[in-house]
This record gives sequence, C-alpha cells and structure tokens, in this order.
Amino acid sequence: MTTLGHLINGSRVAGEGRTQDIFNPSTGEVGGQVSLASKATVEDAIAAAQAAYPAWRDTPPAKRARVMFNFKQLLEQNADEIARLIGQEHGKIVHDAKGELQRGIENVEYACGVPELLKGEHSKNTGPGIDSWSEFQPLGVVAGITPFNFPAMVPLWMYPMAIACGNTFVLKPSERDPTSALYIAELALEAGLPAGVLNVVNGDKEAVDTLLDDDRVKAVSFVGSTPIAETIYQRASANGKRCQALGGAKNHAIVMPDADMDNVVNSLNGAAFGSSGERCMALSVAVAVGDETADALIGKMQTQMKTLKVGPFHDAENDFGPVITKAHQEKVCGYIDSAEQQGADIVVDGRGAQVAGHEHGFYVGGTLIDRVTPDMTCYLEEIFGPVLLVVRVGTMEEAMRLIDDHEYGNGTCIYTRDGEAARYFSDHIQVGMVGINVPLPVPVSYHSFGGWKRSLFGDLAAYGPDAVRFYTKRKTVTQRWPSAGVREGAQFSFPS
Amino acid sequence: MTTLGHLINGSRVAGEGRTQDIFNPSTGEVGGQVSLASKATVEDAIAAAQAAYPAWRDTPPAKRARVMFNFKQLLEQNADEIARLIGQEHGKIVHDAKGELQRGIENVEYACGVPELLKGEHSKNTGPGIDSWSEFQPLGVVAGITPFNFPAMVPLWMYPMAIACGNTFVLKPSERDPTSALYIAELALEAGLPAGVLNVVNGDKEAVDTLLDDDRVKAVSFVGSTPIAETIYQRASANGKRCQALGGAKNHAIVMPDADMDNVVNSLNGAAFGSSGERCMALSVAVAVGDETADALIGKMQTQMKTLKVGPFHDAENDFGPVITKAHQEKVCGYIDSAEQQGADIVVDGRGAQVAGHEHGFYVGGTLIDRVTPDMTCYLEEIFGPVLLVVRVGTMEEAMRLIDDHEYGNGTCIYTRDGEAARYFSDHIQVGMVGINVPLPVPVSYHSFGGWKRSLFGDLAAYGPDAVRFYTKRKTVTQRWPSAGVREGAQFSFPS
Amino acid sequence: MTTLGHLINGSRVAGEGRTQDIFNPSTGEVGGQVSLASKATVEDAIAAAQAAYPAWRDTPPAKRARVMFNFKQLLEQNADEIARLIGQEHGKIVHDAKGELQRGIENVEYACGVPELLKGEHSKNTGPGIDSWSEFQPLGVVAGITPFNFPAMVPLWMYPMAIACGNTFVLKPSERDPTSALYIAELALEAGLPAGVLNVVNGDKEAVDTLLDDDRVKAVSFVGSTPIAETIYQRASANGKRCQALGGAKNHAIVMPDADMDNVVNSLNGAAFGSSGERCMALSVAVAVGDETADALIGKMQTQMKTLKVGPFHDAENDFGPVITKAHQEKVCGYIDSAEQQGADIVVDGRGAQVAGHEHGFYVGGTLIDRVTPDMTCYLEEIFGPVLLVVRVGTMEEAMRLIDDHEYGNGTCIYTRDGEAARYFSDHIQVGMVGINVPLPVPVSYHSFGGWKRSLFGDLAAYGPDAVRFYTKRKTVTQRWPSAGVREGAQFSFPS
Amino acid sequence: MTTLGHLINGSRVAGEGRTQDIFNPSTGEVGGQVSLASKATVEDAIAAAQAAYPAWRDTPPAKRARVMFNFKQLLEQNADEIARLIGQEHGKIVHDAKGELQRGIENVEYACGVPELLKGEHSKNTGPGIDSWSEFQPLGVVAGITPFNFPAMVPLWMYPMAIACGNTFVLKPSERDPTSALYIAELALEAGLPAGVLNVVNGDKEAVDTLLDDDRVKAVSFVGSTPIAETIYQRASANGKRCQALGGAKNHAIVMPDADMDNVVNSLNGAAFGSSGERCMALSVAVAVGDETADALIGKMQTQMKTLKVGPFHDAENDFGPVITKAHQEKVCGYIDSAEQQGADIVVDGRGAQVAGHEHGFYVGGTLIDRVTPDMTCYLEEIFGPVLLVVRVGTMEEAMRLIDDHEYGNGTCIYTRDGEAARYFSDHIQVGMVGINVPLPVPVSYHSFGGWKRSLFGDLAAYGPDAVRFYTKRKTVTQRWPSAGVREGAQFSFPS
Repeated sequence: MTTLGHLINGSRVAGEGRTQDIFNPSTGEVGGQVSLASKATVEDAIAAAQAAYPAWRDTPPAKRARVMFNFKQLLEQNADEIARLIGQEHGKIVHDAKGELQRGIENVEYACGVPELLKGEHSKNTGPGIDSWSEFQPLGVVAGITPFNFPAMVPLWMYPMAIACGNTFVLKPSERDPTSALYIAELALEAGLPAGVLNVVNGDKEAVDTLLDDDRVKAVSFVGSTPIAETIYQRASANGKRCQALGGAKNHAIVMPDADMDNVVNSLNGAAFGSSGERCMALSVAVAVGDETADALIGKMQTQMKTLKVGPFHDAENDFGPVITKAHQEKVCGYIDSAEQQGADIVVDGRGAQVAGHEHGFYVGGTLIDRVTPDMTCYLEEIFGPVLLVVRVGTMEEAMRLIDDHEYGNGTCIYTRDGEAARYFSDHIQVGMVGINVPLPVPVSYHSFGGWKRSLFGDLAAYGPDAVRFYTKRKTVTQRWPSAGVREGAQFSFPS
Repeated sequence: MTTLGHLINGSRVAGEGRTQDIFNPSTGEVGGQVSLASKATVEDAIAAAQAAYPAWRDTPPAKRARVMFNFKQLLEQNADEIARLIGQEHGKIVHDAKGELQRGIENVEYACGVPELLKGEHSKNTGPGIDSWSEFQPLGVVAGITPFNFPAMVPLWMYPMAIACGNTFVLKPSERDPTSALYIAELALEAGLPAGVLNVVNGDKEAVDTLLDDDRVKAVSFVGSTPIAETIYQRASANGKRCQALGGAKNHAIVMPDADMDNVVNSLNGAAFGSSGERCMALSVAVAVGDETADALIGKMQTQMKTLKVGPFHDAENDFGPVITKAHQEKVCGYIDSAEQQGADIVVDGRGAQVAGHEHGFYVGGTLIDRVTPDMTCYLEEIFGPVLLVVRVGTMEEAMRLIDDHEYGNGTCIYTRDGEAARYFSDHIQVGMVGINVPLPVPVSYHSFGGWKRSLFGDLAAYGPDAVRFYTKRKTVTQRWPSAGVREGAQFSFPS
Repeated sequence: MTTLGHLINGSRVAGEGRTQDIFNPSTGEVGGQVSLASKATVEDAIAAAQAAYPAWRDTPPAKRARVMFNFKQLLEQNADEIARLIGQEHGKIVHDAKGELQRGIENVEYACGVPELLKGEHSKNTGPGIDSWSEFQPLGVVAGITPFNFPAMVPLWMYPMAIACGNTFVLKPSERDPTSALYIAELALEAGLPAGVLNVVNGDKEAVDTLLDDDRVKAVSFVGSTPIAETIYQRASANGKRCQALGGAKNHAIVMPDADMDNVVNSLNGAAFGSSGERCMALSVAVAVGDETADALIGKMQTQMKTLKVGPFHDAENDFGPVITKAHQEKVCGYIDSAEQQGADIVVDGRGAQVAGHEHGFYVGGTLIDRVTPDMTCYLEEIFGPVLLVVRVGTMEEAMRLIDDHEYGNGTCIYTRDGEAARYFSDHIQVGMVGINVPLPVPVSYHSFGGWKRSLFGDLAAYGPDAVRFYTKRKTVTQRWPSAGVREGAQFSFPS
Repeated sequence: MTTLGHLINGSRVAGEGRTQDIFNPSTGEVGGQVSLASKATVEDAIAAAQAAYPAWRDTPPAKRARVMFNFKQLLEQNADEIARLIGQEHGKIVHDAKGELQRGIENVEYACGVPELLKGEHSKNTGPGIDSWSEFQPLGVVAGITPFNFPAMVPLWMYPMAIACGNTFVLKPSERDPTSALYIAELALEAGLPAGVLNVVNGDKEAVDTLLDDDRVKAVSFVGSTPIAETIYQRASANGKRCQALGGAKNHAIVMPDADMDNVVNSLNGAAFGSSGERCMALSVAVAVGDETADALIGKMQTQMKTLKVGPFHDAENDFGPVITKAHQEKVCGYIDSAEQQGADIVVDGRGAQVAGHEHGFYVGGTLIDRVTPDMTCYLEEIFGPVLLVVRVGTMEEAMRLIDDHEYGNGTCIYTRDGEAARYFSDHIQVGMVGINVPLPVPVSYHSFGGWKRSLFGDLAAYGPDAVRFYTKRKTVTQRWPSAGVREGAQFSFPS
C-alpha cells in the first residue's frame, strides 16, 4: 500500500511524518495512506510558489492561457482514469465523477479566456493631457483548501483562474480523497506550468494553519462546512489576507400548484440523491404549496424512488454510491432517526440499505420524509446525505419565509409555469443562486458561484468573473507627460 | 453655543448624553459641541435605515439616480456655505475646501449613472432552453465611518453610491468637524431621499462599536488611520459583515535625473503642503535619484517654499491652514525634532510658525528635510503634517525598493520623461495608485480609490466601479420553463 | 407671423430664401413659417461644427458631461414651455408632450455618464513588455435628421451622446414642427456648449442632401419612414459615412388565451391610440390566438374605447390630438376605407371625428378593425394613425409567422402569464424590441433602440450603449519602450 | 494536376465549369487549377448554410465554443502541412507561414471564449416590476471574401467568431492560393461543425456578386484592396446587408531623433520586407525627423539589408520569398522605376533579383528609396512589395501632417523614448492602429483590427470584441408580469 505525498516545486515529495488512512467507501476497506504535511513541508511549498512568482507574473496572459488550453486537453484525455480515482476514494458513481470533472474542465475553459478577462479600464483625458487606467495585477502566492465531496472540481474552480491571472498556488485538497487532485495537478504541470507555479500539499489542521498564518500567502479560497469556513475567514482576515470561504447549505425547492409535476419529480430525484446528497447544492427540502400539491409530489416521488439504485462506484448502472465514511453513514441515519422521533413521516427509508457483495460499504439508501417542520433537527442542520425532506405550507409567501429564515442561503428553486411567481421569487428570495424549474442552479463556469447568508464568507464569489477580481488587485495609474521637449525639436541632440 | 445632534429617520435629533468640544483650528477657540451618540441612539438610526430599506430597494434605479441628480445641484448651490463649514472646523483654506467638495460632487455624478453600473450579465442558452443571468442586489443597511481630514468628500465617496445601489445608510462622521457632513446629509434628503434612507449619528467609539456589532448592518466602509482600520476590519469581518477599511500612507515620489524639474517643484509644493499635509494622498517623501538631482530639487524647493503662506481658513490668499488640533500640532513638530536629532538636515523649518492675529491657531509651517534615511522615525511613520522628506538614492531600483519595503502602499509617483522608466515603475511598484509626473494620483470618480499593503483592508476599493461591487451582492438565476403547454394550445381553458 | 431661422455657430441666423408654413394641427391654422436652408447655409453650419471640433474633442469627457448635467436641469426648468411648443405644432396633448420630453431628458441623463461609457480596454503584456489599449475617439462633425412625430425626443436621442463623445453636431429637425428643437438647442448652448458644437438648420431635401454629400460630415443619424431611411443609408454609405437610419414599423401584439385581459385592454389602448398612433413604436396590430380570445378582446376594447377623448393639444383631459396634416388625416381615413372595402369589420370608426370648436383640426378618432387579414392594404402598410387592427389566428406559431413575414421588425409584444410562451416568443421572433406584457417595449435610455429587418439600416442601434459605439471609432495602440537607458542610469546627463 | 473544388454542406464538391491556374510563385510554375464557382454553386452553398442555421443557432454557445477548442488543436497538429500549402501557393517562407497560422489560431482561441463574449446586459426594475435585457443574437448566413496575402489567417479572422456566435458561413477565399483555406475548413468540420455550418466556394467576381446579391446572406466581411472594398461595401449596403470591408494601406513610421536606432533598424527590416511587403500592415514609409536622423537611418539600413535573403518558400533560411504573380512583380518594379524617374534615391535596388535555381520565380529584392516626396507615385499608391521609402522632414508636426493627409489610415508607428511625443502622436494621428516603437501594431486577437479613412469601410472592426458585435444583432426585451394569480393562490386549480 502506498503513501501519497506532496507536489512541490514541480516534483513529487514523499511525506515525512504523520499519515492517515484513505478508504474506499464502496467496500469499506482502506486503500492507502496519505501523508499529513508538517509546517515545514507546507513552508517549502509556499517558498516554491514564492520563487516561481516573479517570472510567472511577467509571463504574458496569452501565454498563461495557452497552458490552460493544453491542460483542458490533458484532462479530457485522462478523464477515465480521473473518474476512477474519484470514485475509488469518494464513492461516487463513474458517470457522476465524469460529470464532476466536466464541470471542472469548464472552469479551465473559462480560464483560457484570461486575456479578455484581465482587460483594465482606460480613460483618456481625465484632465487636460492626463490619462488614467486600471490594471488588474496578480496577488502573489494564493492558497486553496478544498473539500472531499468534489475532489476534482473544487480545486479546478480555484487554481486555473488564480494561475491564469498570474498568481502561483498551493493547494491543500481533502485528506479523505486526495489522489485525484494530485493526479490532476501533475497534468497541469505537464501542460506547461513552470515548477513551483502549482504545488499540492496533503494535510490536516497543521497544514491549514500554516497556510493561514504565513505572510507570503496573500489570499485563501476555501470550500467546506460553515463552522470551518467561518473560522478560516476570520483567521485569514485577521492576518490581512484576502479570503473567500464557502460553507454549508440547506437548499429548498418550492413546488407550486401549477408546477409540471413530472419535471419536478424527475429533476428532484437527481438533485436530492445524486452523489448521495453530498453536494452543497443538493436539493434537500421540497416545500409543497398546498396539500394537494404535497400529496401529488409524495405519490410520484414514491413511485420514482423505487427505481433508484445504490451501489459501488464502478458500476455505471448505479444512481449513487456510498457516503464518504462510516461515521458519516451513522450521522445521516441519525438524522433520519431524529426525524422519526420528532414526528415526521418516513415515506421511503434508506437506513439499513444493503448492497450485495459490498456489505461493508458506507451505504445509505434514498430517503423521503414527509411532514417535516422547521423546528426539527433534520430541517435545521445540513444532512449531506441522500435524504429529501418535504415541508407542507399553505402559501408561496410562507414557503419563502421559511427559506429566508434558514441560516443558509446557497441555492434554491421554484417550480412553476407562471412568470410572475418566478420573478417575484427570484427577486426577493435571500439566496445567492436561484433556479426557476432548475433544482440545482449551479451557475455555469462563466457566471460565478456564491451563496448568501452563512453559506459564503467574503465579498466575491467563486469562479467565473468574480474569481478574476478575487485573484487580482486593482492598480490605477494616472499619467501626464511634461512639456514637449522632444516633440518640439528642442532635444535633437539627445545622445543616441 | 450650540450642540450638534444627529439626523435620524429624516429629522434632526438632539443629543441626549455625552458631548465633545468642536474647535476652530484657525483660532484655537471652541466653536460648539457635538453630541456623542449612545448605543440606543445608534440603534435608532439603524432601525430607521432598516425600516426604509424594503421600499428603497424596490425603487427603480433610475428613480434613485434622479435623487442624485438633484443632490448634485443642491451641493453646487450651497458650495460656499459648505466650504465655510469645512474651513471653520477643519482649518483648510476655502479654495481647498471647495476643491474637496468638488471631488465629492464628482462621486455624486458617478452615482447618477447607476442604472448603467448595475447592469447584470445575461446569458442565453447556457444549456438547451436554459437562460442564466446575474443581478447585483443591494445589501441592506450599510454604515460609513469617516475621518476629519475630508469631512465632506469622504462621506460622499460612500453613501451616494451605496444609496444609489438600493441600500440605506448610517453615517458616523468625524466628531472633530461634523457640521458639514450633517449639513450635506440634509441636502440629500431635500433632494428627495425618503426618510430613513440616510441617517447621520455623531459619536465616538461607542457609536462605532454599535455599528460594527449590530446584525442589521451588512457592510462597513471606513477611512482613517491604519491601526483603527485594521481593528475595524477584523471586528466587522468576524461579525460576518462586508468591510473595506482604508488606512494610512507614506507616499513617495521618485525624481529621476531627466525629470522636468519645474514641474516637479510646482507640483510637489501643492502635493506636500496642501491641506497641511493632512491627506492620505499627501506626497510626503521625495526620493531623488543621484545627488545632482537631489541638489537641484532642494535648491528649487527652498526658493519656491519662500512664497508659501500659512494662515486662517477664511483668507483665500493662504496656501494652507492650521492642523486639526493642538495635540496634532505638537506631534508634527515632534517628528521634525526627531529628524533633527536623528541626523537629517532641516532645510526649511516650519516649527514655531506664527500667524499674526491668530496666535492660538494650530499652525505648522511648510517644512523640508533633506538627507532622511529609512530608519528615521519621521520616515517610518505617517506625519500627517506639512513636512516633505527628501531621501537620496543612487539608482531607480534603490528608490523602488524603498517604496516596496514601506508598510504602506497607498500612492506613489515618478517624475521622468522616459517612457520605459515610467512603464517599469508603474508595472512593478507595490502601490495601488501610481502617478507618472502626477504627485497626487487620486483616481477620478469613475475609477476607484484603493491602496495596497497596509493602506487598505478589504478586497474592493472605494468609490468608482469597485463601490458598485462593494455595495451589492451577486445573485445568479438559472431559468428553464417546462413543456410548452400554453404555447401549444393545450391550455386554452386556462381560467382568465 | 414670424419665420423661424437656424442656429449656427452659437447664434440665431435668419433664413435667406425659401420658406414653408407651420400649421397648428389642433386648429388647422397656419402658425408661422420656417426657413428652408440653402446649400450654403447648411455648409455654414458644417463649417462652424468643423471649426469647433478640435477644441471640443480635447475637452475632458468629464467636462463635456458637466454641460449635460446643466442641460438636463434647463430642460426640466423649461418643460412647460417645451411641451406647449411641441403641442402647438405637432398636436399631441400636453401630458404626452411632457412624456416625450421626459424620455428625451433620460437620454441626456445617460450622456452624463460618458466618462464611464468611453472607457477603453487596456491589456498589459500582450507580449513581453508590450501593452495595448483601445480608445474610443470621436468622429468629427456628425449630422442628425429627425422626424415630426417626436420633435423634442428624437433629436435628444442623438446629439447629447454624440456631443458628449466629443463630436460636434448639425441637426436638421422636421420642418413641420421645428420650433421646439430650436428652443431646446438654445438651452444646450446656455448649458455651456461652446459656439459651433451644436448647430440647427431647418430645411428640406436640399439641406439633407448637403449633409449627406459633404465630406466634412462623418456620420448621419436618421429617423423617419423606411423608404427615406433606405435612401439616406445608401447615399451616406456610398459617400463613406457612418450611417444609422431608422424607418417604419408595424408592431404586433400577440394576445394569448391566458393573458390578463384587463391589462391587455388598458395597455393596448394607450399603445394604439396615444399620440394618434403617430409613433414608430405604436402597437397597431393585435393578433388574437383563438376566437374566444378575439371575442373577449374586441368586446372589452369596444367598451374601453367609448371613454377615449380626442381633441386639441392644450386640453389635458384629451387622450390624444389631431394627426400632423390635412393630407395625413385623409390618408389615415383612406386606410380605414380600404379595410372596409377589403372585407374587414370596422368595429369602432374614427372617420369623421368632430371636435367642437376645432372643426378644422386634423382629427381622426380611435378606430378598431376586426377580422383583418395579412393581404389587406391596412395590414401591409404603416398607417401612422389611431387605428388598431385585430387579426385572428388559431395558434401562437401562426401569430409568430405573421410577424416574421412582415416587412418591418421594430417592436412586438406577447400577452401571456406563461413563462415558456414568453421565452419562446422573445427568443425566436424576428423583431428587435420585444415586450412581454408590455405593448410599447421602447428600451430605457441605458439600453438601445433598434428594430430589425427594414425598420433599421445600419449596424448599431440608436441611443444607449450602441450610440457610444456609433459616435466613436476605435483606435488601438500597441506600445513597447526601448532599452532602459534612463532607468539604468546611463542617461544621467540628459539635458534638463 | 488536380482541380480544386468547393466544400458545400460538409462535402467536397467538384467544380463544374470555368477554372483558373494556381501558380507556385517560387518557381513560376503552374501547380494546379481551381474551379470558379457558378452562381448556382454559390447558391447551393448559401442554401446549405441556410438549412444548417436554425439548429446551429439554438446550440448552446458553450457547445459551439467546444468545437473551437477542438479546431485549435487540429490546427496545431496540422501546422506543418498548412504552412507548406501556404508557402507553395503564396510564396511566403515556411516560418512566416507558421507565424500567419499562429495569428489565425489566436483568433480561434478568442472564439473559444464566446460564452463570455455573448453576455447581454440585464437591468432589474427599469420600471416598477419591469425588467429589461439585451441579447446578442446571430444574424443567419454570413459570407467572407478573403485576399491572397494571408490565405489562412484572414479567413480565421472571420468564420471562427461568426460561427461561434451562432451564424453559418460561406467563405470565398482568394482564387490565387485557395488550397490552405479549404484544407483548414475541413479541419473545422472534423472538429465538430455540423454539415452546412461552414462552406467554402472558390471563384471570382461571379461568386462574389452572388454572395452580395442573395437575400439569404445577412452580412459580408471583406479584406482586399480599397477600390474593391469600397465597391463591395456599397453594393452590400445597398442590398441591406451588414458589411465590413477592409482595404489598402500606406503605413508610415516616424523616426524621432531620440529613437533607439538599433531597434528602429531591426524592426523596420522585418516590417518592411517580411512576406515581401505583401501585408496591409507592412511598414512602407519611414519618416525621419531631421537630416541627422535620416542619415543615421539610411546608413544602418544599408548595412542591415546586406544580410537580407530572398528565395523560395521551403528554405527556412530565407527572409522572404517571391511576390504573388509575374504581373505583380512587374508592377512593383515599375514603382521603383517611377521613383527613380521622379527624382528619389534608390539606395538599395531590388529590381532584377536573381535566385539561383529559381530563375522563373517572381522575386523582387529588398529595396530602400531615400528622398521620396509626397507627390511621387511610389508614395501615393500602395506598392505591396519589399520596398521601403524614406521621407525626410524637419519636425514631428510635419511628419504627422503627411500621415494625416494620406488616403489610407491603417497602421502607423512612432519611434521615440519620450513619453510626451508618444502620447501626442497616438492621441492625434488619424490612423486606426498605432504603434509606439512597434512598427507592425497589429492588435492581438482580443483587441480588434481596423484602419481609419479609406482603409476600412464599415462601423465595426475585424476580429476581437468588434467581431462579436458585427456578427450579432441586439435584441432588447422588456418584461412585466401581470397580477400575481398563481402566487396569491387564486390559481390552485390550474390543470396539471
């Protein structure tokens, strides 16, 4: 069994100290170890990034973009292997892993357009004979700290654009499923990144703290749970770093009486249970307006869910796989228990899901819970499992109030055919990413990803146009030239 | 003598507790008192802003802009009175106060264009039949905390755009010269702002802390000294608020051997001594490249400075007035003392400046200090007085290293005729606002104001395009409509 | 009775030759004469504009914008008089004239933002050490030729932005109602335009041809009928000028079975009959989907139209006034005759409208014609009168085909509550300005006005962002500086 | 010997009628024939493009971009073969052909960013409850007509962006060197373009006229000589098509006394003689300010030109190759003759250049002519050969007057170290593409290419951001939804 090390200054570096097991959640077995970087190792990575910075910063953006074009190609050529690595350590089914990678590649595509995106604003004659312009210059060394649930995609939200903007990067991927991130980073080097421009360190809190406290690191992008996000944001901010920290979610869909119910059921199915619900954009609460709507929804969902297949990652017939750890499996089931105890209806019960031949995998079956109320534990907290809650309300206003009162404000959706209802909802709801008949309103790569309320700490959202602003700082130049010596001929004797 | 109160929910509110003296720095006399708001008073202002928010948010941007058009007009009509109020409490000469106001008005002009500036990004067919767009929605209640040195302009950097974007506002101006800010805010109401959209509270730390800790306040803009800026940024960030906090500066000009020396001297004169150097963009260090350059600079400055006139604010013949307080007068002179003790040459000495008839005014004369070195106290700290330091270096690289090594990175300038030198400088220097033959490179209102390093805490700069981003949050909508019932005629029986 | 002259180089110039009567359409009486400029007079205006150009071009955009701020103020202060002048010569009711003026003022407001709008694109390091940027420079002398139906607004679509961009301007307003345009132009001068920056010549084809053929005129904006628009576009283009020529329209509204019929009827009423239908955005054809829809529409319209009041311009109780000329009155009635003869139902008949006390005014009453078919003359041509046609179709697709097959493509609208129908319609319809439940989808001033098909000749639309592009040309600068002589100290002996 | 046909609806189509010889200019021999399309053949291509349009228009922009990503890859993989095809028929040396291709590929790269570039403008609350947005929709079938001198690059300026924007395309490349264009178009199909989206017809005036007159063609992009450009622009405009037609040039460089003369000579050498001067951005006139400057320039050029190597395309040691035809060779030499007769100094004479082993190739050697005056034929006309003229002037103003008085305004350059001279020049010169110490200021692919005066007919420049506007039309949607039926619960009985 191998121990995964780090990627520093263009080379694989073996770990030197503590390690942690990496599991295959589909089987429940340990598949390898990952080294947990010491402070010194992380500092090596930072030093490599710092050393690579001056030359990379001065590389024309079009040249930096060309590395991204190559990188995209290599990612596509290696998609099967990457999907396998993701599935093995995360548990998501191969088709889902490929979907994840595809979204990541789209961020690389967007970074290919960096010469356009970096254009500054130029003003002629801000005063007589005075010109002024803004440039968006890179920050220096930037760090990314990423979660287990999208081991390939979330790093690709960050470093392609950070690097295309002229920064150098240190990535600390999740220690639960680190292999794909490392594999992909090596492709980025193969695509033409000079050594030190992209570094990967595996690790835990020690690595994170080092990144947060080192003065050479100018900015930190984080995706994870809200408590950690908040801590990281506060610490990075206190240290004078730029920070964006994305946290948890509880995404509601309002189902209106005029909704196209077939579309609702089909799309909720994927949105609630895909990737075992381990997505910050998973749709975990359906709010049915009117009991008639709720009954229809429950009825159709029940039927639909009978066809759901849970099982190991490598079988493309499966709809979704195991959750990430044994502990998490228990936690998810605990939420279902609590719902039951607190009076909700467990319509479809995923506890005790059995997958033949994979009895030790961390499986939870698709679960549908009706008559959930806003005071229940399962409603208040993020479950991060294949569990869809149904809350019944009398009016759309009541549904919107529920959403606005929740701690999180990542994504939300309304199902309706009615233009007015959709517009009212999208205008007023206090959530950053809004779907109209789209349950997973993840913005495409050329828009930006950002929740509201306690789902995002920071001013600027992830990827897309906001990422360009996050990974650069504005410099404004004001220029006036003195009297026209050379032009008027006084200076003909200038020494050539 | 009157006691200045607050402006809450459209009305003047008398203060209820503690007060503080307001001085006339030109005479050294007390001109009135200002009330220092209690927590409860600040909460009243926040509550008023909160109550006014929903209707103001839904007011079309073009209507909000129209208030700004009116506001601009009223500011112009009342310019004389405003300049008098500024001069009386701050000490700056009337022409300088009018200049300040004019820069403020330019920010109002920029806010008039808010319908254009708020345009979101619209994408057709992000998938088949799917559209996506981003909206920039207001934040809610926003607070501004502003310094004594630009009592009219800095508030106008903030609330016109914040309000034009649909937010409501609580301003806490400097308690040293609060009258003009209050006067101007009343003009904004007269221009058509509904009650509660703009509120002003006078106060000190208690008021500031209330604004920083109240959950209803969604963002804080601050301008002041670096230690306070840092504290405010950390506290606001820890409380989950958006924050931009602008701090101190030490702005250097490099004088190259090929500079147009007449231009250097003329423009440095205003940039170093104007407003007694109490500007975060004051040019306080001239770095002469080569001794020949330094000697020429010193010689010409000495001559030029003989004509400098310091005196009371109301006499337009004066070049600059007193500093803000007795204590500050002593502090500035203390810096000159320290320079002398640490071995610098006091070429022109402004200590003990006497203004006939205004013997108790807080005056410091224009001061020129040669042979300053980077380890001297006067070099390391921000003096905020009419003191210009000259540092002698051998090369442009050495000059740039000095600048990059300094704690602050607000503004800087190079004097040269040479295109290459200017480009190299503006590209590499680690300062946010760069002048080429322009010693005060304050960006015009349609660009943004932001220093680097410890001169600004936060991701986004003040006023201009960045202010639009700072005072709004991105919402991304993804929209797909279900099957074409109505269009295809199946729904003709829809109840009208 | 006075004869209206011209405004050239800052002064009123009396006409020297041919004249034409100006009527008051509300009474049918002649109110004055307008001078028709000879070629020489137009050339004087062009020469004045040409002479004023170099200094105006070099005036900082922010200063040019400031004239627009003043202009807006003067327009608001003189709104009553301007509305009276419009009404007197055009016939539209005072409230309508004020609405027209307001839309014009909004274009001035947009021009106030020109410093932002003129920002060019700045790219650092397009190659090593090479920077590149685009500037949008003015064209020179620009001409505008405007129609009778919006004598105040359409000129304000053009010259505020053209001038704010740094061009100088020659306006030829309609000779039927020229007084308000001249009056407004004088306000623009009063606002601070230097003499020669804006010139007005009254005239007919001789004036137009001079503008089209003179090499000093770099661009022509035209609004009028399609045949003239086409001729002007071809002639200006052949002469190497930039041209945008807006022509006629036949704007259809599709009324879907699920439409909110009260909204349909209320809004169609204003959109069809307001300003006697003499608007290129008038809604002149309602396409009802399903006979049930058509019957409901006809029924409600009939009722609603009973309250319509036609009469003289000065009585604010009236809904609309006379048409522009006796000849046009006859032409409109002729279209109604033809519809009758060709088999349509004249549901409400406006022929022979009598206005007591104004028997010689050029009145036509509101007219509603049902069962119009696409081969009828009244359908094929633009009537430009207070006549609403109803066409009955079986499906939305059939309705869209009608619209797409028509020669014009200016504006269109769909009435529905259904998101999918609205999206399908707005996506596919071959019309440039599309309303969803908005019958007059005139873009606001910060978007641009442009029809498709034979409603606009040219690449760029009128006003808004497109106007900035139309009135400027792109210049791209690529800059590299030679070896670092001055910076590296080799040039210390540079002669100062 | 083969006869080159066409590429219509995804397949090669053999020619049916007239043909023309294709020469190898390096040897003077005929290498094949090209079929000249009849009207019917061109109409087939248009019909194929028209048929492919609806589906392609509805393909999401991100999917269209993905074809461009593939296309870029295929172009890079086939670069050697493409360079060979270019060299064989055009005569340019292989390294130059690869450079050409690289510039073309950069336009494909820019088209990869089309999802970002197509973003429309979205405005919330243009009125109460009203939203408005602009979309940039494709035009339909677009045609490109391209010149012999960049057989690969100029087509790539056009169709990648046109197609990425959702249009379909008919290309008519130069009949003198058509093979590479056809080869490249097949790669575009291989990259994933559906049949009919890109079609290539070879031909002459008959083909061009068909494209200009067919109503299904909505826009025409042309690059060629000014007389043809003007004719094409007028005819396309008269036919109601959008058109941009790029013509000839006479690009001047001003050499200032303070210029870095080594840089001048090195860069002029390539800019004047590269590709035998057959470039519309070739630098063909050097304007020396001061006789001292002129003498230094002539002296250094003479020395430098001794190393110039002219010869056949396949030998990478050569600096440039033959001109395109025997007739053109004679024409270029005729210009040198005329210069001699009109009194200029032929400093280096390229007439009668002999290339051993290629005696029948169409060679002209590098030619330097001093003391040219503005009335000479060689100055007034575009030579399009390896001939550099030197004009001597006394001042920079005189040099600028020369440039501004010339018929063309494509590119220009100034050589200086002085910031003021450079800024004055770039601000005032009446030329669209300006270099500062850059003799070939061809904008990078993310800016746009456009001359002024008689070098470009049309409003919008080629490639870059302007191309997006040229290949799309603006549609503005204004949307309001009727009363809140569904939202307020009145519509619960809506039939699902």
